[in-house]
Amino acid sequence: MEVISTHTNGSVITITTNGHHNNGKSDHRNGRTTHDNDNKLLLGNSNSIKPGWFSEFSALWPGEAFSVKIEKLLFQGKSDYQDVMLFESATYGKVLTLDGAIQHTENGGFPYTEMIVHLPLGSIPTPKKVLIIGGGIGFTLFEVLRYSTIEKIDIVEIDDVVVDVSRKFFPYLAANFNDPRVTMVLGDGAAFVKAAQAGYYDAIIVDSSDPIGPAKDLFERPFFEAVAKALRPGGVVCTQAESSVNYAWTTVPTYPTGVIGYMLCSTEGPEVDFKNPVNPIDKDTTHVKSKLESLKFYNTDIHKAAFILPSFARSLIES
Amino acid sequence: MEVISTHTNGSVITITTNGHHNNGKSDHRNGRTTHDNDNKLLLGNSNSIKPGWFSEFSALWPGEAFSVKIEKLLFQGKSDYQDVMLFESATYGKVLTLDGAIQHTENGGFPYTEMIVHLPLGSIPTPKKVLIIGGGIGFTLFEVLRYSTIEKIDIVEIDDVVVDVSRKFFPYLAANFNDPRVTMVLGDGAAFVKAAQAGYYDAIIVDSSDPIGPAKDLFERPFFEAVAKALRPGGVVCTQAESSVNYAWTTVPTYPTGVIGYMLCSTEGPEVDFKNPVNPIDKDTTHVKSKLESLKFYNTDIHKAAFILPSFARSLIES
Repeated sequence: MEVISTHTNGSVITITTNGHHNNGKSDHRNGRTTHDNDNKLLLGNSNSIKPGWFSEFSALWPGEAFSVKIEKLLFQGKSDYQDVMLFESATYGKVLTLDGAIQHTENGGFPYTEMIVHLPLGSIPTPKKVLIIGGGIGFTLFEVLRYSTIEKIDIVEIDDVVVDVSRKFFPYLAANFNDPRVTMVLGDGAAFVKAAQAGYYDAIIVDSSDPIGPAKDLFERPFFEAVAKALRPGGVVCTQAESSVNYAWTTVPTYPTGVIGYMLCSTEGPEVDFKNPVNPIDKDTTHVKSKLESLKFYNTDIHKAAFILPSFARSLIES
Repeated sequence: MEVISTHTNGSVITITTNGHHNNGKSDHRNGRTTHDNDNKLLLGNSNSIKPGWFSEFSALWPGEAFSVKIEKLLFQGKSDYQDVMLFESATYGKVLTLDGAIQHTENGGFPYTEMIVHLPLGSIPTPKKVLIIGGGIGFTLFEVLRYSTIEKIDIVEIDDVVVDVSRKFFPYLAANFNDPRVTMVLGDGAAFVKAAQAGYYDAIIVDSSDPIGPAKDLFERPFFEAVAKALRPGGVVCTQAESSVNYAWTTVPTYPTGVIGYMLCSTEGPEVDFKNPVNPIDKDTTHVKSKLESLKFYNTDIHKAAFILPSFARSLIES
């Protein structure tokens, strides 16, 4: 992992690096740059916005924008893969954005994280080996660790800057990466899955950014073929998605439209009934006795309800 | 009703009035004014925003803002009660705002409207007499008229400008106001309910704006006492709300946080089980045979799922 040194510069923390690696890929944006004031931050976001606010404009959701007020910029820089920004917001706690899209907010991101973890892991009896693709920030790992049956968690995060910034600014998540059951890999998730031992994982959780930018491969057929091979019979995969047979959804205030979907699939083998969870974490007394703070969003009923679709979505999926 | 004449002025339609009435209330903002260009529109919104976009900043949701791109401003003016604006948006169709808050979007408002109508009316066996408070735009009325058992609908809208603008720009809704079962009343909903015949209505639907501005009374105790009196035994009321015993929610992309809640209550009498609808409109063959376009959001399963709350909301309501 690249060595990164940080120092505070006024209200903004900048990161200076001692070089960058390229891993032989030619399409990375090289030249990590730093900004040291709010104006540059705001101008760096391709559209003009209200001063002191962050606005998300996305090609995926034209004609609308969600904005949050910035209290303090904590980090901004370019990694080998994407623009990375972290700021303290007025009402959502710390906010991480990648290429101008909100990935996680400390106070508003829990529905996304709880659902992407507990929908798949609540649906299989004893999850032991879990692969997380993406999720370098650590919230997904936090949720996976609620299960007392867990023996091994591999996390493959492509962007070392995301990892370093997250460990610095979310110290309450950083310790989980030192759990002996956890192996952190800095690298390409698609390549990792392709090379994985066949039938190894009980569950694969794809906690990636949107299908533009570095996560594009994670939405394409070769990736899902590799995922199927890496899962045990009756293993499960959950990824944020547009539609599928087992499509679930939840509400996240800071994502475009306020909603995000999940696609859940299982390999052939012991039948998995996603809509009737056999292993709901809110019913797990081991969990209740643990030191982890309580679930804020997920419960057994919410799990079941997540698969109930509005009429328009039902028609789209059935057609 | 006040006589209003409209004429087109460039790309903007302005309304000139031949005087205004005050109804003896002294706290109305008098002096209806018109604007005739986009700059004035944008400046009229207390915060600076991206040119050509509408941004909603609300005291109820500080530190965040939702914005939509304006294709064409259709109407802007001050009524006796509030600022009224209607514009064609880039992706949500026509958008109606009151006092700077999005009330309805043509392409994104259907979850709100379908749920506020079919949650209560789907929960009672044969809705015949329905009172709508607010809803001058006409989408709520459209949904109520799906029920073949309906004999009488009273709509009480406080703002004649909302009614006039809506009839002009939503012609496909306007005809419903001429249905012989419909009585349109221009006036104060709280006063109307207080004066209503005891035990008259099967259902009361409070389709109001937020509890700031002219709709404030509709969120307070005297109003709900009057509502209870105006309902028959086992009658039901549905209002957008924060929390209650029968609290349901749905997702609306253009509302702050992407979510809106509903409070459902029934009077003493025949038991109403909101969570297991006895009269779901999607199962009604009369409806299927009707000329109305099909439901986009509501179905029996979505009705039941709307009452399933995330853990944090469940704790708040139980505490």
